[in-house]
Amino acid sequence: MTAHFELGQPDWAMEALAQLPEYLPDIQARMAVVIRFSRLNIEFGTGGPFAAGVFETLSGRLVTIGVNRVVHHQCSSAHAEVMALSLAQQTLASFDLGAQGMAEHQLVVNWRPCAMCYGALVWSGVRSLVVAGSGAELEQLTGFDEGPIHPDWIGQLEHRGIAVTDGVGTDAAIAVFKQFRDSGALVYNGRQGDSIV
Amino acid sequence: MTAHFELGQPDWAMEALAQLPEYLPDIQARMAVVIRFSRLNIEFGTGGPFAAGVFETLSGRLVTIGVNRVVHHQCSSAHAEVMALSLAQQTLASFDLGAQGMAEHQLVVNWRPCAMCYGALVWSGVRSLVVAGSGAELEQLTGFDEGPIHPDWIGQLEHRGIAVTDGVGTDAAIAVFKQFRDSGALVYNGRQGDSIV
Repeated sequence: MTAHFELGQPDWAMEALAQLPEYLPDIQARMAVVIRFSRLNIEFGTGGPFAAGVFETLSGRLVTIGVNRVVHHQCSSAHAEVMALSLAQQTLASFDLGAQGMAEHQLVVNWRPCAMCYGALVWSGVRSLVVAGSGAELEQLTGFDEGPIHPDWIGQLEHRGIAVTDGVGTDAAIAVFKQFRDSGALVYNGRQGDSIV
Repeated sequence: MTAHFELGQPDWAMEALAQLPEYLPDIQARMAVVIRFSRLNIEFGTGGPFAAGVFETLSGRLVTIGVNRVVHHQCSSAHAEVMALSLAQQTLASFDLGAQGMAEHQLVVNWRPCAMCYGALVWSGVRSLVVAGSGAELEQLTGFDEGPIHPDWIGQLEHRGIAVTDGVGTDAAIAVFKQFRDSGALVYNGRQGDSIV
């Protein structure tokens, strides 16, 4: 039986990260970089059209940007948010990005997180979430399924002290989903082998 | 920046897995083994009181049993279910445990999955979920938070063709949570540094 598994970034992502400024003070700029990574991930053929960045909320210090790696790693949990949060936790050597003595952290994603990543962000310790959009466009354009997310997802996050900002860079995010749709690439929802009921 | 992260089983788990029969036809027996792993994980000090097993539903063939590794790996996503599902996917070389041509798989967990693992099991391709319980006992006894899970969590799973069986081995699962509570061990909910609102 398998004792370990390793998840990681594609080489282009590490090279692109090394070229980025240390700080991105503006949330528009943070989202623009995240959306660029979502586009590069499909252009390099390294995963689905999703990226997520972890930043220090106030300073905009870039901790990391992760991309979707489900197919490459044969791991259905390797969504962009799980990658970014896990890599950030490794970088900062803490399973809690909201630990005492640590700057507040923010998760920036190119659409509303799916049901799994929604829970993952709660446990990660981030104090805020910025998304490009939260409507049906993602599912309609790409065929990806967001799953059974809590109907009051924003209220539940805010109740836990996690602030939500929606609608940052919506058009640019949608343009990548359209590019993905037009590419005919694999949509790897779980139980692909069966009809999704 | 960190390019990779690795998550894995403690040594005792690999040794214990090697001692188990190849098939556990009865779901009571599957749950008993999972609960034993949840107990061993706290007794060996290798994680929280949680374990999850992946089995072939009909035959009971054991694919793997994963345990909670959040603190060891400094990774808030390293819950037992994510560990088990990811290790099973590595073992079977598929991100979809419900792929065409594959036997149906079942996830057996020593309590209702948290909000994140709930989503993770949907994407994993398992066709059924067996839990020891789903009530407030876990949160009340251990202090762990299950997060904002969908209010109709069972209905949402069944709508997606994932059958749910609750109440298998409840007393034995609760006994481990009491053992954990009495041990005074760390409860590592995200944002431990701050009061959970």
